[in-house]
Amino acid sequence: MAPMRYVVIMAGGSGTRLWPLSRQGTPKQLLHLIGGKSLLRIAFERAMELVPADRVLVVTGAAYLDDVRADLPEVAPENLLGEPMGRDSLNAVAWPAAVLAERDPDAVIAQLTADQLIEPVSAFVAAIDEAYRIAEARPEALVTLGVVPTTAHTGYGYLQRGDELEGFPGACVVREFREKPDAETAAAYVASGDFWWNAGMFVFRAATFLDQVRQLEPEVHEGVLGLAAAPETLGEVFGTLKKISVDYAVFEPVSRGHGSARVVAVPLPIAWKDVGGYASLVEVLDADAEGNVVNGLGVTMNTSDSLVMNTVEGHVVTVLGGEGLVVVHTPDATLVTTLEHAEQVKALVGRVSETAGPTFV
Amino acid sequence: MAPMRYVVIMAGGSGTRLWPLSRQGTPKQLLHLIGGKSLLRIAFERAMELVPADRVLVVTGAAYLDDVRADLPEVAPENLLGEPMGRDSLNAVAWPAAVLAERDPDAVIAQLTADQLIEPVSAFVAAIDEAYRIAEARPEALVTLGVVPTTAHTGYGYLQRGDELEGFPGACVVREFREKPDAETAAAYVASGDFWWNAGMFVFRAATFLDQVRQLEPEVHEGVLGLAAAPETLGEVFGTLKKISVDYAVFEPVSRGHGSARVVAVPLPIAWKDVGGYASLVEVLDADAEGNVVNGLGVTMNTSDSLVMNTVEGHVVTVLGGEGLVVVHTPDATLVTTLEHAEQVKALVGRVSETAGPTFV
Repeated sequence: MAPMRYVVIMAGGSGTRLWPLSRQGTPKQLLHLIGGKSLLRIAFERAMELVPADRVLVVTGAAYLDDVRADLPEVAPENLLGEPMGRDSLNAVAWPAAVLAERDPDAVIAQLTADQLIEPVSAFVAAIDEAYRIAEARPEALVTLGVVPTTAHTGYGYLQRGDELEGFPGACVVREFREKPDAETAAAYVASGDFWWNAGMFVFRAATFLDQVRQLEPEVHEGVLGLAAAPETLGEVFGTLKKISVDYAVFEPVSRGHGSARVVAVPLPIAWKDVGGYASLVEVLDADAEGNVVNGLGVTMNTSDSLVMNTVEGHVVTVLGGEGLVVVHTPDATLVTTLEHAEQVKALVGRVSETAGPTFV
Repeated sequence: MAPMRYVVIMAGGSGTRLWPLSRQGTPKQLLHLIGGKSLLRIAFERAMELVPADRVLVVTGAAYLDDVRADLPEVAPENLLGEPMGRDSLNAVAWPAAVLAERDPDAVIAQLTADQLIEPVSAFVAAIDEAYRIAEARPEALVTLGVVPTTAHTGYGYLQRGDELEGFPGACVVREFREKPDAETAAAYVASGDFWWNAGMFVFRAATFLDQVRQLEPEVHEGVLGLAAAPETLGEVFGTLKKISVDYAVFEPVSRGHGSARVVAVPLPIAWKDVGGYASLVEVLDADAEGNVVNGLGVTMNTSDSLVMNTVEGHVVTVLGGEGLVVVHTPDATLVTTLEHAEQVKALVGRVSETAGPTFV
């Protein structure tokens, strides 16, 4: 019998790049941005193409648990993991892995993100299925997913493909992970055909992954195993776990020959729409004839290719003239920016916190 | 003894070009835009350089009387005239003229506007004083004020200077009034040196002005005299008065030889800052080092030459990037436009009323 497959969806982060829609209390994955659905809900529905609902876990911030429960009523309470505070991605991967290993030592986990729109879902499902099959057939494999780049994006990390993995055409050993490149380097990566975007999604046997953590970050290993065995210690233990990314702690060292596993990559031949900011959000929403996207009560005139999001009932947001504007209105904060400048929202949020006060962020 | 001097300040209009700050219930002259003062208050303080407070009348919409009283506590109730509805400018001039003539048959009136910032006030006071002296010395004179143009503005009417008025160097007979010109015509006017902007301010003996109204618009004459004698008939009578501008009804015909008076002009050698819209408002407010004007709780970043007006406490308005933006936030409506497009606000207001509802305008 094949080992059992699970999905863990990560839905954390504060999502400051979608401020003021997303706030410290409302990460972007919980915003009902796309056709009335949240990105988390969309990710959950993708996961249900892979495994039944009772084998989907969600790891999120403890503060968001109520919202997640409301958004995903199909997920049982024991499958919702709420981090008392953000402790970076190693813990967001290792903790659910430990929880699942405690329940099922043979568990194979697809650790998926909820930040993107992915199309077509069928290609996504096929790629994750291939990754599960690799993890099942090759116990030493830590499978990472690589998106075939469509542009020389400087906002993603890249991975360099190595030798093809025997028996799994298309899959390959990862030669090296690369940080977010500058524009020139990104162009060279894409031109070479040797690089994929690092999707930040992984498939592995829980035991294999945890064994790498044991070798590379033994204190975290001990911590998450303790948490899995004694969930009531969460509040006490979680804050003591080392804050480090899973790439930096596990995938990069293992790709360089540390640890005992092997990092392999499976291509995701999909349109990868990262809804990380307003410039990408506008691309996934339906525009009117002038290229404007208007959500909520809004009036545009002589305006084109602009985004208006108004969450306040009984308030009208109007845009007169201009091109590529972004106007976001919420009960206590309004943002006016351009698609070009929307990447800087995070920096703006810092300034808002300093000058207007932390209650606005 | 010289006849007594009076000032009438006109403060009407709905000011849609400053929507959403100005609304049907709040014309722009009552907005506290400049250093916490309204344009009306600033006009009143200018008037007090000319005459004592008890000789200043204000004519406004009946709906605005409470606001005007609060803004100008020095003005006695009998000197506040509230029009039950807008009936164009002839009535706004003729009604107070009739009221003052009833009290003082020799009254000389300076009929002033409250739409502009005027600098220096000393030059304004000197010019109005000169105009009073002409009206006192020449009972046949209807004196109009002409602003020496600084640009070939297409938003103002012009007047063409004729012969110099004997005994009053600088003053002249008005040869002709001209409607708002196109850009080419405006440039020719300014290049000729023969044209002044029509300031829409007048100085005349009440009796002289009313006599022209009697000759040119006898029904209006009868109507306003009746109102002055029996103020309690206001609600019944005012709405029956002919709706016509004072230029069209009196000044233009008299300048063409109709009526028995003579239109003369005195130059106003002032900076004339018409606060008719956001593009002009931004010019009279104090900007920061980036050229931004921020009123209320606002945060700008990588933004220049922009105007942020936020009237809502506890709400932050942020602008990230962009140049020449206008962002105006009020409790129930937000406007985002550019200085370039701000002239079209009136058209936008029409669309807002149609699509979002009349409560917003």
